[in-house]
Amino acid sequence: MIVVKIGGAQGVAMDNVCHDVAALVQQGQPVVVVHGGSAETNEISEKLGHPPRFVTNQSGFTSRYTDRTTLEIFAMVTNGRINTLVVERLQQAGVNAIGLSGLDGRLMLARRKDAIRIVENGRQRMLRDDYTGKIETVNGGLLHMLLDAGLTPVVSPLAMSPDGIALNVDADRAAAMLAGAVAAEQLVILTNVPGLMRSFPDESTLITHLPAAGLEQALSFAEGRMKKKVLGASEALGLGVSKVIFADGRVEHPLQDALAGKGTTIA
Amino acid sequence: MIVVKIGGAQGVAMDNVCHDVAALVQQGQPVVVVHGGSAETNEISEKLGHPPRFVTNQSGFTSRYTDRTTLEIFAMVTNGRINTLVVERLQQAGVNAIGLSGLDGRLMLARRKDAIRIVENGRQRMLRDDYTGKIETVNGGLLHMLLDAGLTPVVSPLAMSPDGIALNVDADRAAAMLAGAVAAEQLVILTNVPGLMRSFPDESTLITHLPAAGLEQALSFAEGRMKKKVLGASEALGLGVSKVIFADGRVEHPLQDALAGKGTTIA
Repeated sequence: MIVVKIGGAQGVAMDNVCHDVAALVQQGQPVVVVHGGSAETNEISEKLGHPPRFVTNQSGFTSRYTDRTTLEIFAMVTNGRINTLVVERLQQAGVNAIGLSGLDGRLMLARRKDAIRIVENGRQRMLRDDYTGKIETVNGGLLHMLLDAGLTPVVSPLAMSPDGIALNVDADRAAAMLAGAVAAEQLVILTNVPGLMRSFPDESTLITHLPAAGLEQALSFAEGRMKKKVLGASEALGLGVSKVIFADGRVEHPLQDALAGKGTTIA
Repeated sequence: MIVVKIGGAQGVAMDNVCHDVAALVQQGQPVVVVHGGSAETNEISEKLGHPPRFVTNQSGFTSRYTDRTTLEIFAMVTNGRINTLVVERLQQAGVNAIGLSGLDGRLMLARRKDAIRIVENGRQRMLRDDYTGKIETVNGGLLHMLLDAGLTPVVSPLAMSPDGIALNVDADRAAAMLAGAVAAEQLVILTNVPGLMRSFPDESTLITHLPAAGLEQALSFAEGRMKKKVLGASEALGLGVSKVIFADGRVEHPLQDALAGKGTTIA
């Protein structure tokens, strides 16, 4: 089993990724696809007159502030636009894909972080009414039922609180939790950079192999959104996934190259 | 088995419908939910700078002209916004819902009407590059697998051409085809009027019972979008559904009232 996370950032060659997924599925390799959607959500939020807002917590992690209006735009864009278009591309490539969010069949249950401590202009304050969550459980049984029926799940980064509220979740960490739940051997995270670099953006500092023990240190030099990918890798390995690969999603054969050892392999 | 179509028009009390669906599911009655999304698609299309365009064919039916941009907005709004929010409401009411479009697991295959003959300013002309379809087959096996697993399918009105292209389909007729495919006893179509009226909008002319033989005549006096509901009813009865009910979705117990005989019952 392979879990593939497709970045929402500009530049990832969605058609190429879908062709590579199709080649794997047609070889009998079960695949679960997970995608993001931040970049497109920002664009459409702007057009709808509700521009995105980002906040930084004490540990320096930046995340989207998701009020209810933002949550509904995020759901619309990720679970409607991006998910449907990935399913369409996979169907065109001969893969019987099925789109899911974490609400469907209670696929991903999350704890709502309804009050988050943020740092703004150097001062701490609490931010409430946020619709963001941290995934706690994944319904692996549902994924296995679909995979056994010959379907390829395509998952958007929305989870559900235990009382049924939709929550925005980080797609990299969702991919890690899903990989753990289906006992995937490999988690491939495709993005718009060649992998983890010791000093971003100098590509000559690309790390090709990283032992799991090096992940904590990697957190200190990983840049921006790469921090969450490092956290995701750490979670996936902790859940029994043998190998996590960060690789370039902009090339002709993104998944094939990643599985052949390009990018950063963490094991 | 009951198939419930929830209108996309303003005024339908989505929360009330979801509560009624939950009551049925909790009584052990399997339900498939189908929804529309025209009104919200129009609203968001306007905001995104791609206003909707409607065309009229020779028989006097009005439909949306769906170019590729419109199709992607339609997918985003119906399969992302409306579908996710219906699933969320049902989950809050204790129903383990799962959202699907016709592309997911090849649920609804349609023939693309890529060239349609329209009437514009009294003159006929062909309109091409339309992403609209007419459903030809429904994957009833997928719905049964999900229902048997305790899930309640919530279906958005997108289908797939045999070569994997997403198509906008009429939600009333989708509901009819789905009802036929799962051998539903009843198809309930909830909208923002009390039912079929002999002379719309005079509610005192509401038809409470209509024999199947009266459907052809009903087509002549049904107003606007009610025409497609009459066609849907005719298709559903032809596929073996015993009873089709048009009822008011704006009341406190829309589904309960419909099943108790309010609205228009066609059998």
